[in-house]
Amino acid sequence: MNRTQLFENIKVRKSFLCVGLDTDITKIPKHLLKFDNPVLEFNRQIIEATSEFCVAYKPNIAFYESNGVKGWQTLQSTMDLISSDHFTIADAKRGDIGNTSAMYARAFFKKEESGFNFDSVTVAPYMGADSVTPFLEFKNKWVILLALTSNEGSKDFQFIKDTAGEPLYEKVLKNSQNWGNADQLMFVVGATRADELTNIRRLAPDNFLLVPGVGAQGGSLQEVAKYGMNKQCGLLVNSSRAIIYASNGEDFAERAYDEAKKVQQEMSMLLDKYLS
Amino acid sequence: MNRTQLFENIKVRKSFLCVGLDTDITKIPKHLLKFDNPVLEFNRQIIEATSEFCVAYKPNIAFYESNGVKGWQTLQSTMDLISSDHFTIADAKRGDIGNTSAMYARAFFKKEESGFNFDSVTVAPYMGADSVTPFLEFKNKWVILLALTSNEGSKDFQFIKDTAGEPLYEKVLKNSQNWGNADQLMFVVGATRADELTNIRRLAPDNFLLVPGVGAQGGSLQEVAKYGMNKQCGLLVNSSRAIIYASNGEDFAERAYDEAKKVQQEMSMLLDKYLS
Repeated sequence: MNRTQLFENIKVRKSFLCVGLDTDITKIPKHLLKFDNPVLEFNRQIIEATSEFCVAYKPNIAFYESNGVKGWQTLQSTMDLISSDHFTIADAKRGDIGNTSAMYARAFFKKEESGFNFDSVTVAPYMGADSVTPFLEFKNKWVILLALTSNEGSKDFQFIKDTAGEPLYEKVLKNSQNWGNADQLMFVVGATRADELTNIRRLAPDNFLLVPGVGAQGGSLQEVAKYGMNKQCGLLVNSSRAIIYASNGEDFAERAYDEAKKVQQEMSMLLDKYLS
Repeated sequence: MNRTQLFENIKVRKSFLCVGLDTDITKIPKHLLKFDNPVLEFNRQIIEATSEFCVAYKPNIAFYESNGVKGWQTLQSTMDLISSDHFTIADAKRGDIGNTSAMYARAFFKKEESGFNFDSVTVAPYMGADSVTPFLEFKNKWVILLALTSNEGSKDFQFIKDTAGEPLYEKVLKNSQNWGNADQLMFVVGATRADELTNIRRLAPDNFLLVPGVGAQGGSLQEVAKYGMNKQCGLLVNSSRAIIYASNGEDFAERAYDEAKKVQQEMSMLLDKYLS
């Protein structure tokens, strides 16, 4: 999916919601355990319930990989349930030396070799340019590079300032734009504060940002839209647990529908307000 | 495998060689293509040919993942061929927020859930403490943390100096030792220069170092042993292509045997010389 198509989907669905498929068999409703593949059945019902309200799905690869070969089969079957007008993100945090990153790119992008045809993959920047560029060689495929993550450990290295006072995550944002353009490079940005978002938009005005963990309540989505939106929206805001685990009863899909709809309605207002 | 057992294997086999299983179906001898699973047959013969000369095997996960579900099956079958007195490294460069890293740890360490029972996994440090510590909660399992990698892109971020003049990779070496001790934490160090190795040993005197890409010729193995070895050897030196692709003819296993033996013989001399 290219940037024009992604923006078109955002406008049509009035949403920039990404639903995270962090499906954990110990957290899904008990009545699903009677199915041959409970995780797949859960994903099927979640995708059906949320597809009209979101523009992207983001399976967290670890949750499938932890189940070994069977987990990868479940991931593949899950991907077959997602329509081609949803942007798909392999949240895999890969990254290695050049020829190995090329293999990871084939794992997620080359359906004829791996069975997977994701639109994008999240990539860790530590190993530098040649660990990222092999992912950028696929037409209409995207790298979503970790810049500023939202976890506690982000403070350990990402904020280290160089001798010119520039923190590491800013260097990642700047240097990586020499490797790929805004039609192929997004950033993971776990920022909700106005000053951080303003600064990130100064450094990466055109790129889409994948923002994790923003709830519908509490105003943080408002801040993200106000300070993060650009002319083509430029935002994918992820919600995982708040939607997929809205209920752990038999009504989980209806409750996921309700939650996704609620977020979409707020996003619709924000698009009207800030997308000019 | 714990550190005592690893060191014992090093002394018995007089080797600190790790054989990298970066098996690429386009690079293996053509006569293997007649097998049901050519990659598995190649790995089987390579493991048989090299097992007496090495102490570790390191499958590069990307090379299996690029083949999707079938690739993961091949990886699992390959691991079943490796004896328990070889240290096994999942070269996966994983790392994510806490609960997701915990899933990746289960993927590589918890055989009853994933089918895999690796001794160690390579982990990327960008996301900080909580992305690494979940891997450290498994007894006798190891994190091999990226510190200084050997690729061209290592210069992009790893050498960035903070305001006190300390480069990022040194901060990784130092800070991470607050998360785990030398019985559970190794480092990837792509260094062969005397000054770099001396400096790394100053910062991490006790930890094992996984050193990639050192050939038997050219003296670099000599430098690594001279400046990198500690009282328990503390080195795993990887060789992938020089051994596994020593020949692409029908003699590939014999040639792999010869190459592995040659490296082991040099390592034996180096252990005699520097392990006091």
